[in-house]
Amino acid sequence: MNYEVGYESLNPLLKPRTIAVLGASESRHKIGNMQLQALIDGKFQGEIIPIHPTAKEISGLTSYPSLEDVPMEIDLVIFCVNYSQIKNGLVACAKKNVKSAIIFASGFSETGEAGEKLQRELGDYAKQHGIRLVGPNCVGLVNTSNGLIGTFSPAILNVPMNGKKGVGYVSQSGAFGVLTYMAAAQQGVMFNYFISTGNEMDATFEDFVEYMIHDDDTKVISGYLEGTKKPEKLKLLAQQALTKKKPILVMKTGRSDAGSRAAASHTGSLAGSDKIYDAFFRQYGIIRVDDYEEIISFAKLFNPEKLPTGKNTVIITSSGGRGINEADRCEGLGLNIAELSEETKAEIRKGLPEYASVNNPIDLTAAAMVTNPEYYLVALKALVNDPKVDNIIFTDLPYAWNNGSPMLDEFVAVAKASKKVIGLFPFPLEGMAYPPVTPLLEEHNIAVISGTLNPVRALAKLVAYSEHVRDHTQKELTDTPVYKLADVEQLLKPGSVLSECEASDVLDCYGIPTTKRAVAKDAEKAVQIAISIGFPVVMKIDSSDIPHKTEADAIRLNIVSEEEARNAFEEVMRNARAYNPTAVLNGVSVQEMLPSGVEVIIGAHNDDTFGPVVMAGVGGTFVEVFKDIAFKVVPLSRKDAEDLLEELQGKAILNGARGKAPVDKEAIIDVLLKVSSLMEDNKQSIKELDINPLIVYEKGIKAADAMLVVQENVSEIQVIGG
Amino acid sequence: MNYEVGYESLNPLLKPRTIAVLGASESRHKIGNMQLQALIDGKFQGEIIPIHPTAKEISGLTSYPSLEDVPMEIDLVIFCVNYSQIKNGLVACAKKNVKSAIIFASGFSETGEAGEKLQRELGDYAKQHGIRLVGPNCVGLVNTSNGLIGTFSPAILNVPMNGKKGVGYVSQSGAFGVLTYMAAAQQGVMFNYFISTGNEMDATFEDFVEYMIHDDDTKVISGYLEGTKKPEKLKLLAQQALTKKKPILVMKTGRSDAGSRAAASHTGSLAGSDKIYDAFFRQYGIIRVDDYEEIISFAKLFNPEKLPTGKNTVIITSSGGRGINEADRCEGLGLNIAELSEETKAEIRKGLPEYASVNNPIDLTAAAMVTNPEYYLVALKALVNDPKVDNIIFTDLPYAWNNGSPMLDEFVAVAKASKKVIGLFPFPLEGMAYPPVTPLLEEHNIAVISGTLNPVRALAKLVAYSEHVRDHTQKELTDTPVYKLADVEQLLKPGSVLSECEASDVLDCYGIPTTKRAVAKDAEKAVQIAISIGFPVVMKIDSSDIPHKTEADAIRLNIVSEEEARNAFEEVMRNARAYNPTAVLNGVSVQEMLPSGVEVIIGAHNDDTFGPVVMAGVGGTFVEVFKDIAFKVVPLSRKDAEDLLEELQGKAILNGARGKAPVDKEAIIDVLLKVSSLMEDNKQSIKELDINPLIVYEKGIKAADAMLVVQENVSEIQVIGG
Repeated sequence: MNYEVGYESLNPLLKPRTIAVLGASESRHKIGNMQLQALIDGKFQGEIIPIHPTAKEISGLTSYPSLEDVPMEIDLVIFCVNYSQIKNGLVACAKKNVKSAIIFASGFSETGEAGEKLQRELGDYAKQHGIRLVGPNCVGLVNTSNGLIGTFSPAILNVPMNGKKGVGYVSQSGAFGVLTYMAAAQQGVMFNYFISTGNEMDATFEDFVEYMIHDDDTKVISGYLEGTKKPEKLKLLAQQALTKKKPILVMKTGRSDAGSRAAASHTGSLAGSDKIYDAFFRQYGIIRVDDYEEIISFAKLFNPEKLPTGKNTVIITSSGGRGINEADRCEGLGLNIAELSEETKAEIRKGLPEYASVNNPIDLTAAAMVTNPEYYLVALKALVNDPKVDNIIFTDLPYAWNNGSPMLDEFVAVAKASKKVIGLFPFPLEGMAYPPVTPLLEEHNIAVISGTLNPVRALAKLVAYSEHVRDHTQKELTDTPVYKLADVEQLLKPGSVLSECEASDVLDCYGIPTTKRAVAKDAEKAVQIAISIGFPVVMKIDSSDIPHKTEADAIRLNIVSEEEARNAFEEVMRNARAYNPTAVLNGVSVQEMLPSGVEVIIGAHNDDTFGPVVMAGVGGTFVEVFKDIAFKVVPLSRKDAEDLLEELQGKAILNGARGKAPVDKEAIIDVLLKVSSLMEDNKQSIKELDINPLIVYEKGIKAADAMLVVQENVSEIQVIGG
Repeated sequence: MNYEVGYESLNPLLKPRTIAVLGASESRHKIGNMQLQALIDGKFQGEIIPIHPTAKEISGLTSYPSLEDVPMEIDLVIFCVNYSQIKNGLVACAKKNVKSAIIFASGFSETGEAGEKLQRELGDYAKQHGIRLVGPNCVGLVNTSNGLIGTFSPAILNVPMNGKKGVGYVSQSGAFGVLTYMAAAQQGVMFNYFISTGNEMDATFEDFVEYMIHDDDTKVISGYLEGTKKPEKLKLLAQQALTKKKPILVMKTGRSDAGSRAAASHTGSLAGSDKIYDAFFRQYGIIRVDDYEEIISFAKLFNPEKLPTGKNTVIITSSGGRGINEADRCEGLGLNIAELSEETKAEIRKGLPEYASVNNPIDLTAAAMVTNPEYYLVALKALVNDPKVDNIIFTDLPYAWNNGSPMLDEFVAVAKASKKVIGLFPFPLEGMAYPPVTPLLEEHNIAVISGTLNPVRALAKLVAYSEHVRDHTQKELTDTPVYKLADVEQLLKPGSVLSECEASDVLDCYGIPTTKRAVAKDAEKAVQIAISIGFPVVMKIDSSDIPHKTEADAIRLNIVSEEEARNAFEEVMRNARAYNPTAVLNGVSVQEMLPSGVEVIIGAHNDDTFGPVVMAGVGGTFVEVFKDIAFKVVPLSRKDAEDLLEELQGKAILNGARGKAPVDKEAIIDVLLKVSSLMEDNKQSIKELDINPLIVYEKGIKAADAMLVVQENVSEIQVIGG
């Protein structure tokens, strides 16, 4: 393995040769005993060393009074002691040159400031001495490949270590993690790694994801996340994982208001806006799941050699009703239950009775289950040869097919030879959910997933993932163009809200088209500017103290003459003064009046977790009404900008709704990339930016209004990531 | 019981005293033997009579050579014979004055025209002779209360008849029905009735729903539906069921395009547009479910004495992560995870350690499960006293609570005394999903439902149902106002598409505000009309042959002078003639030019299944882009019209988006009711009506354009319902 510095430092934690159990005990109900016994029962492939002040031997293993007394190197120390003894334990680890430790004890950052301070100190100490840590306040970790059961959790101790491996799981919730571990094992998926990260004093969620990306035995990476502490790292990892075709499935909680309130208090970490997480996951090909069941189903379905080639899915059933229900579910989740070609239908028709339906969903009728198992084979053979079919779902197979049936052998051989995704999704009934032939099917790459929603949901996510892998592979590695035309620093006064003219000046520096404009200090100047721009013009107050110009009645549209311009100047100034007597008025901005077009909103802000984020929406008032907006994390690639527009329902308007000509989407993409660049270059100073409306035409685009908020003070800026 | 004619005729089918098995057999693998044995094993509470040409006795029961030979009255005959023998069998039934029959045989309408004809003939024959039938092409029926297992389905025969009863189930899919029956039984819900309706030669889905509404033992009615054959009856039944507080849960398939294509071929029935079904269910308080699991979960949760008082839901958990996940799910499904009042929080805080979280979701911490079970009691006691809490969800209970634990006894007593909905929704793990105390909890009205999505989904639907019951109860039984001002018959030429002016004339007859207008045959007349209306005016071609006036360039807006009017007349006529040389041109319609306002669309059409349906949407072009429309089936009550607007996302625009004044919603409701009345009165003749745009102001409303399509020929009109 090609370990680099960083994740390889987690090797002693997950693949130790020697483990010392600090606080090992002979007393059955103590954690120190349960932990020791777990390592013995798990047949840990290495040395287990109990540490006990007086005992010579515990559970048949030679015991030592302290770490110092152990005559060999120690890779991992499991702390079965309470929080008051952690510090001394770490000092002993440092002396003995121990590489890693698991700390279960609670009483740290989750309890308040004092605990947080102690935790920070211990973390710093461990870092100085090169000790990698998991915890505190965690359930521990398991590596089912080498028998390392580094946990006292009674629930995990009782789960036998068999089933399909290749799935790593890392959880920020101990209890939920244990439940997921058990559920997966019950459904035939045994995680190769299980890690409860607890308070993440040292090693975090991201660190373990990184480890698994580089671990050849891990095919699917999954986890439970309440909030990332290292978003920049997660970005890089997501890209590496895509390159390696290792899906990352994340159950991120805190989607709802109540959930995110609770998540913030539960982990003590800043949860960030869930919408931005959602955008981030989508942008970086991380698969977001709603519950642990999706992880299990996806893991069963996933085969890196057979990624779905598209959405076209065929359902084969012996029950018409079941087929319809499955078709509804597939289409509801974005799969395509396509009509079959006439050739394929004819081919199937040949081997089926007349009363069967060869339309998708294909209804073989109950006879197929009982008296005519060959119908299943007929359908499969025809479908694997149809290039328009991507995925094939069976809802059942013949009762009579048992291991050793020649027809079944032919069936699995045909399935295995095909590159299509083929699955059996049986009804979740006891005695029916997992037929006896399940192991044979799975051996031949036919995933058997029982359930109503889960199997189809997993297929839909697998199809989306596969698309993402393709996009990622095809992404051209071109240089990012430089959009900056001029420095903006001197325009960004800390803590200020820029007036529209000032904000537009910033946009100009990045080549974003703005209106012709100038600020007039008196009426005559206003008239001159209007003449030089050409009538009609728009006149607005220019003042960072009056962001809501309409409310102040300090805008005049469609000014067509010198006289109107003169009057407008006086009115606008008067109304602005009346509205806010203490406001600093720069004057009246005189601007070209833009013809009407499609209104787009582009915004950006500095997210607490992910840094600069760009937002877009289409349709003026309707953006608010339909909440039809989408986000991408900066920097945006061209593909990101395209995807952003594609995610908007309002894209129909851009494409030319009701027979209108399509607008200049290229121009919008250009502005998105320029805003991304502006935000990236100035993430220390720009807090918020709003271009609203940005008016798009059949050809061309122009920002009709803009607003920009500058950070209070650079020293206050949070450093993002790490 | 207060049986009326109709559903009571199904009594012999579901509560027979004597059953004859036609085609009874001694041969183990024949249906005639399996059916006979099923009745014996099911301990049918009545006489079982085998009919066999030669046998004297089968399975210990006296056998007769024919129905005629049976010396007693026969309530039900189960036909265990194939389709060629059905006719003779029915004739024998008629002779013997048999009241009902079950016919399993296939080979009828599902096979094509010949089978359909035979089926119709047999159905008519049975009707003439007063024989109620279930089938053909069905799995049969079961009444678990009297041991009537009227089916040969091996799957059903193996399911023991215990578990919670009170749920009736009727299915248009045999196979899916059986799977649902088994799944329910495995999860502790035993249907009291199970009916597979097959081809519905006589008794239909709706007939059995009616039976169950009047059956005192049935508390929840559920079913699987591909298409209703009696929509009018279903409407009435839905209302009766609401009055009786008996929820009807329907799993209607064919939601997707592929699914509805398959449903149409599967049952041979017209599936109708799924969107209209959806609207119909919502309007009539029928609960639509996506899968059978919802039926089971809902049935467990439903208690007519404890309907939810609202959406406010509190989650109590021992795992922070699990609580957050559940909160996300609740809010995602429309429940409200409200913040608790300070009083309630203080009350709970008193009995919990400091590190526990008293915010909703309440995290009692793992200690509650293991060492401190009293935490659960503390939380429950505080919550039942908080009037702002409607529903209480526990995700777990202490390990140590067993039947006989005094603390558990107190817990269930507190829960039982409360009117709030209280449930235990455990993680779906073997050995954890249904704790040993489940029967005790259920006995005290604490529903125990294990699963991830299901329990919360059931609660959300129960809350919605409860709201519907309240609305229904509160609905005032006022007389429907008469909107018709004049007859429209002479305006509705069969097969015609009415021009805008003609369509507007129809609207006038129902008092729907339209523009001032008149049709001019020449330019001078156009000028006169414009003067009498007052400038500015709009001029449009009036021709039923040119419905797309913009495309024909045959509209002129904002005509402000006599000269413009004269020119506009010539241009409009010329363009219309060029666009469609063979069109009949009535002339140019001169209309008042409406000031701008909010654009609403109101449409109506005659649905194949449900008859006239009214549709509404807000926002001009945006209606199409965002597909933000909703439907109600005619006739609309005032509440229906209000709900229709409430279902639109665009309602924000009506309420005054971006600081604008709200528009005249009353005026929209008035038009909706008038359109409903127009469609109801003329359902034989109006095929489609479109008022687009209908312009709404702060005060008042006006139809700016209208289109109306008249049915081809009255004799072609399908008779709806029955």
